[in-house]
Amino acid sequence: MSPLAALRHRLGWIHDLTSSAAVLEWDQETYLPDGATALRATQVATLRRLAHEAFTDAETGRLLNAAADVAGLPADDEVTALVRVVQRDYGLAQKVPASWVATMAETVGHAKAAWREARQASDFGRFAPHLEKIVALNREKADLLGFADHPYSALLDQFEPDLTTSEVRRVFDDLRARLVPLLRRIRDTPQPDDACLHGPFDEAVQWDFSLRVLRDIGFDFERGRLDRSAHPFTTTFGTSDVRLTTRFDPHFFPSAFFGTLHEAGHGLYEQGIRPSLDRTPLAEGTSLGMHESQSRLWENMVGRSRAFWEHYFPLAQQAFPDALGPVSLDAFLAALNRVAPSTIRVEADEVTYNLHIMLRFDLEVALVEGTLAVRDLPDAWNSGMERLLGIRPSDDAEGVLQDVHWALGTLGYFPTYTLGNLMSAMLFQAAERDLGRLDDHFRRGTFAPLLAWLRLHVHQHGRARSARDILETTTGGSLDAGPWLRYVEAKFLG
Amino acid sequence: MSPLAALRHRLGWIHDLTSSAAVLEWDQETYLPDGATALRATQVATLRRLAHEAFTDAETGRLLNAAADVAGLPADDEVTALVRVVQRDYGLAQKVPASWVATMAETVGHAKAAWREARQASDFGRFAPHLEKIVALNREKADLLGFADHPYSALLDQFEPDLTTSEVRRVFDDLRARLVPLLRRIRDTPQPDDACLHGPFDEAVQWDFSLRVLRDIGFDFERGRLDRSAHPFTTTFGTSDVRLTTRFDPHFFPSAFFGTLHEAGHGLYEQGIRPSLDRTPLAEGTSLGMHESQSRLWENMVGRSRAFWEHYFPLAQQAFPDALGPVSLDAFLAALNRVAPSTIRVEADEVTYNLHIMLRFDLEVALVEGTLAVRDLPDAWNSGMERLLGIRPSDDAEGVLQDVHWALGTLGYFPTYTLGNLMSAMLFQAAERDLGRLDDHFRRGTFAPLLAWLRLHVHQHGRARSARDILETTTGGSLDAGPWLRYVEAKFLG
Repeated sequence: MSPLAALRHRLGWIHDLTSSAAVLEWDQETYLPDGATALRATQVATLRRLAHEAFTDAETGRLLNAAADVAGLPADDEVTALVRVVQRDYGLAQKVPASWVATMAETVGHAKAAWREARQASDFGRFAPHLEKIVALNREKADLLGFADHPYSALLDQFEPDLTTSEVRRVFDDLRARLVPLLRRIRDTPQPDDACLHGPFDEAVQWDFSLRVLRDIGFDFERGRLDRSAHPFTTTFGTSDVRLTTRFDPHFFPSAFFGTLHEAGHGLYEQGIRPSLDRTPLAEGTSLGMHESQSRLWENMVGRSRAFWEHYFPLAQQAFPDALGPVSLDAFLAALNRVAPSTIRVEADEVTYNLHIMLRFDLEVALVEGTLAVRDLPDAWNSGMERLLGIRPSDDAEGVLQDVHWALGTLGYFPTYTLGNLMSAMLFQAAERDLGRLDDHFRRGTFAPLLAWLRLHVHQHGRARSARDILETTTGGSLDAGPWLRYVEAKFLG
Repeated sequence: MSPLAALRHRLGWIHDLTSSAAVLEWDQETYLPDGATALRATQVATLRRLAHEAFTDAETGRLLNAAADVAGLPADDEVTALVRVVQRDYGLAQKVPASWVATMAETVGHAKAAWREARQASDFGRFAPHLEKIVALNREKADLLGFADHPYSALLDQFEPDLTTSEVRRVFDDLRARLVPLLRRIRDTPQPDDACLHGPFDEAVQWDFSLRVLRDIGFDFERGRLDRSAHPFTTTFGTSDVRLTTRFDPHFFPSAFFGTLHEAGHGLYEQGIRPSLDRTPLAEGTSLGMHESQSRLWENMVGRSRAFWEHYFPLAQQAFPDALGPVSLDAFLAALNRVAPSTIRVEADEVTYNLHIMLRFDLEVALVEGTLAVRDLPDAWNSGMERLLGIRPSDDAEGVLQDVHWALGTLGYFPTYTLGNLMSAMLFQAAERDLGRLDDHFRRGTFAPLLAWLRLHVHQHGRARSARDILETTTGGSLDAGPWLRYVEAKFLG
């Protein structure tokens, strides 16, 4: 076997272990009997441990060096990218000792339980000591990983490779400067009520309607599924097996419909990766921001557009004659796109959502650099909400305790949600430059040109091209809030 | 860690690998997208290879010897059994070289495809050269494994530990001697038609009815599931996660109902294994015969009894008023227990089923000892059918090519089906000796006493007690056709 073939072989069976763990985790969220959760946790832990041990083993490093050194390496993007990405992953994995991983795992175990209790009692004090440990561990990790400008960059880099804290800050500053006044202008105009979205909507009919739309936009059910779970998610076992989950609320149409469309956006990305990357670390989305750009593009820029509903609203009316029969397209669209600041991120509309994220980014950066103490976090949260959104949470459960992310040990993840929104608008604008106005396609229920464009420029590359590369190639520029702001201004101020 | 703890730890994570492979295989039969079969085969192969490598590794032998040698080993049945069973498995695995396994795997790959084609064309000649290789490989395996009385014993021992060919022959001779004339007597009495079983039976109602009966007999849905698949099977990922599958035929009630009850019998066994055996090689049925005894006991001795339907027939009539409303209990029972020799094993009734198995046993033994050539197999099959069942298949598809087992490389497996039937009657008789007539319970829809008895004497032990031990403890004797013959005589000649 050539050094490259040997490396591929090893990465292949390690990938089989992690994708098998993902199958077991999917099963856990969809079909696992209640009594089997402890057993399942053990099985998943074994698979992930074996995969981690094998990947970080010196043998991987040896094969990697041999493959990188080999004379006459074919001038093949894919091979170069494989070596580069695996060198990165292997390097990062080597920098974090097993003792740190074990301490974090134990800390998270306690922190999750404490967070649940604290949120239930709306008592931040119960969670604070755990969050202090998590912040300290993240600071330690930043030192282990290394950084140039700011320790937070090392954390961000895990989810959004090669993006720095100062770049995010610059873009977020632009965004905030235009978004806060924009929100004020929107709030000055009267917002519609959304009673028409509250149904009831029969679950089986919702299921069929969602499936139909998923098929239309190009999700391939020969290489994927949709199932029910308590919390919607997308998981991938390979480009030929991409699974979405959703949940249904008979009293709120957007819940399942846009949740499913969001997950389908993630799923289309995973299904679109070149099969030649299968069973390698390249067979993933290139960054969390780029991944989120795909889900938000289909959910918001496609799924909440007038053109989309010009095609689908008559079908929705046929499917739900009682709930939607008497409603006009204009009223339905106005309800779908109602803007109203609220305290809970996951319920936020398209305009206010990014303000929630920017608040978390500011707070995370301050926690990591030590300019904000954990005990002062609730006050900082509440005054930030007031400044950005003009509202205050009634208690910590509705405020600083609402998201599980910090209890899971992750700092540096939140900004990728907004990065995704910004990228989605950049890509959409680039696609329209190449393809002409996409509304004309959506109006006819045609999504193939957009999907083909995303496949060509984004999906197929997996991690073989970085998010920065993709944005540069498609838009000629780098991360920029402009396209998203123009999209929002056009849509909400018309 | 003590040597025993170290052994348990190693066996535990190896078990996680094999149970994870089983999850992936279950998913393959139930929910896998069509396009993902190649990916899934690779994932399963990796998990099974890693498990096999780890189990056969010298480190397992070292830990096993250390655990066996340790002074002051607690006088604990379970520990002694663990060491004994793992020594057996490890010893067998050491005897079969990887080259044999690889050759067999390759042979089976071709043989399965050839068998499918041969069956479709009803042309044994296309399958014969593959079967010749499989017989030769099995003879080689028998030599590798070693045997005392007959090479076939080494093959049988893989599925039914410690049972010899001569013991099976003795028991089968008794069985045949009484069963063939018994069948002649039954055939002399007119058999009812079974039109009332042909419905139609609505699939969703069948599903609910099956679930209800499964719950009643004690299958625990907190630790198990029922799903649909093309071929019914039971699989176990641990005692807290036991999964059954079934399929529905709207035009034949027994298909799903007794198929599900059969699988539930397997499932009750697996759910009944002591949780302390979890993640060890003891957490399985002790032999295929004993496993089959549990499925046949619930399917036939419980599920096809008059007392059972005295309770359930009114409920079945409510569930299927069109199909069963006008039918009497007597007519329904007569149809369920109709005896009619047929060429296809899996469609055989309770009386003729074992004749199908005994034919296969005779032929397998003759093939292995070389007294029958593969090319003469179709003739031997057809004349055996005539002798035992009084009918001849119309072609090889309906005859010697009907079962996949040989194409899968397994010889020595078939007899366990009949061993299961015989054991089921031995156990049922012993349970009635302890509990009184079980019919009185069934008539009231009460199955807990029988299940509790099986849990105590059979299920809980897993592989910690052999089938021979269990039969001896419960019946005071060894494998015997008498109880089953008496059961059949009473039921069918009454």
